[in-house]
Amino acid sequence: MILVGERINTGFKDIKQAVLDKDPKPLQEWARKQADAGATYIDVNLGAVSAKAADMCWMIETVQSVVDTPVSIDTNKPSILAEAIKACKKPPLINSTTAADSKLDQFLPIALEHNASIIGLAIDDTGTPKSADKRVELAATLFAKATEAGMPPERMFLDPIVMPMKFMQEQAMEILEATKQFTLLSDPPPHIICGLSNISNGTTHKKLINRTFLVMAIANGLDAVICDVLDPDLTNAAKTADLVMNREIYADSYVRE
Amino acid sequence: MILVGERINTGFKDIKQAVLDKDPKPLQEWARKQADAGATYIDVNLGAVSAKAADMCWMIETVQSVVDTPVSIDTNKPSILAEAIKACKKPPLINSTTAADSKLDQFLPIALEHNASIIGLAIDDTGTPKSADKRVELAATLFAKATEAGMPPERMFLDPIVMPMKFMQEQAMEILEATKQFTLLSDPPPHIICGLSNISNGTTHKKLINRTFLVMAIANGLDAVICDVLDPDLTNAAKTADLVMNREIYADSYVRE
Repeated sequence: MILVGERINTGFKDIKQAVLDKDPKPLQEWARKQADAGATYIDVNLGAVSAKAADMCWMIETVQSVVDTPVSIDTNKPSILAEAIKACKKPPLINSTTAADSKLDQFLPIALEHNASIIGLAIDDTGTPKSADKRVELAATLFAKATEAGMPPERMFLDPIVMPMKFMQEQAMEILEATKQFTLLSDPPPHIICGLSNISNGTTHKKLINRTFLVMAIANGLDAVICDVLDPDLTNAAKTADLVMNREIYADSYVRE
Repeated sequence: MILVGERINTGFKDIKQAVLDKDPKPLQEWARKQADAGATYIDVNLGAVSAKAADMCWMIETVQSVVDTPVSIDTNKPSILAEAIKACKKPPLINSTTAADSKLDQFLPIALEHNASIIGLAIDDTGTPKSADKRVELAATLFAKATEAGMPPERMFLDPIVMPMKFMQEQAMEILEATKQFTLLSDPPPHIICGLSNISNGTTHKKLINRTFLVMAIANGLDAVICDVLDPDLTNAAKTADLVMNREIYADSYVRE
């Protein structure tokens, strides 16, 4: 399972304040914790705190000052991405482009130039998809354009777009069905990822819903997730699901206690 | 989710002793606890403690003396079933027949006569299936024979045969794939059930493996399970999976605390 640690995001107050103060400690602490918990990538999100690429570069450099884990550059601004990617010591994961040409035409060349992996959202300028079929149509278009441009399938991460179960319950099955169909796009298939926490938005049992939905998505072929890697119930559920999928060899000691 | 409570089984020492002593209290206590926890059926298994149908009837009557929940008659002996089913106040679940004609020809008429539901195992006299395809072949044969004999699909529970992940890890995916294919046998599909605990046989993290595998099986169409209904982490995971499958309407209070 590819785990992307979501915690270094200015949506969290401590990170926002740290970025404003240029205080490296909170970022370093969360980077270490998430790396220790097994994060494959550390997501770095500047959010609306600043429009300066230099601030995103500072965040990435701060993370890299304490861990070797590659970062996930979380921005929808090509200008920020173009600068931030130069600060990366290892090929990053780009989070994310949509299927719209206006986005793809800017994000793909940067990803290709820097040997980066990239998340492609099953969404375009017309809005959020409501059906599995629409998700598959958008993902297939995005995937075809990316591979034609020279992106290897193993560096593509397709995201079916998770919606809150509390408000759009019928979407959950559409997302799972889309995930299943994404696995058929190529052999070997592209990676399939989602931003997990949106599924439990507004609910009273977020962790239970997050880990249950994650396991169901893994059963449908998901192999990567942006999530709270510091929730051991979540990561242990994901590890167990990986064993069921026969992706890892069973050992009695597979669980982190 | 249809939950079959597994606890009244002479494989447990307290139940074995209670049956030997004809002491109703342990059976009544477990019947109440499992009914309170939401069991749809209470499984009753005499095991090898006795070959007397009267002992099975005593177990069933003891359960029925304290709860209204229907029982699941857990025996592979037609002679015991034929007597035990007469003791049932409500149409029971018969657990179970195989796909072998020698079994089906004896179990089906009893089930039909008493309006019972019945579990059909994807197994025959040649042994345990190793592939999804063999499971589907056996289940399809069993299902066809049962429906031809007059069994309504909604009273059929097909079981793909769960095997221990620790010793036969590659079987887990075959079981999930078979489950998916069972849903295609008719419209509406038959129920799909499994004896859950076998998946974690011999492992050090049984509860984690049980609930993770259950959720993955639900994602593939399973809608019934024989399990420890007194494990709230397990039943809450199943309830959450039911919400994701859009089988129940989301409410903040859906979890039993």
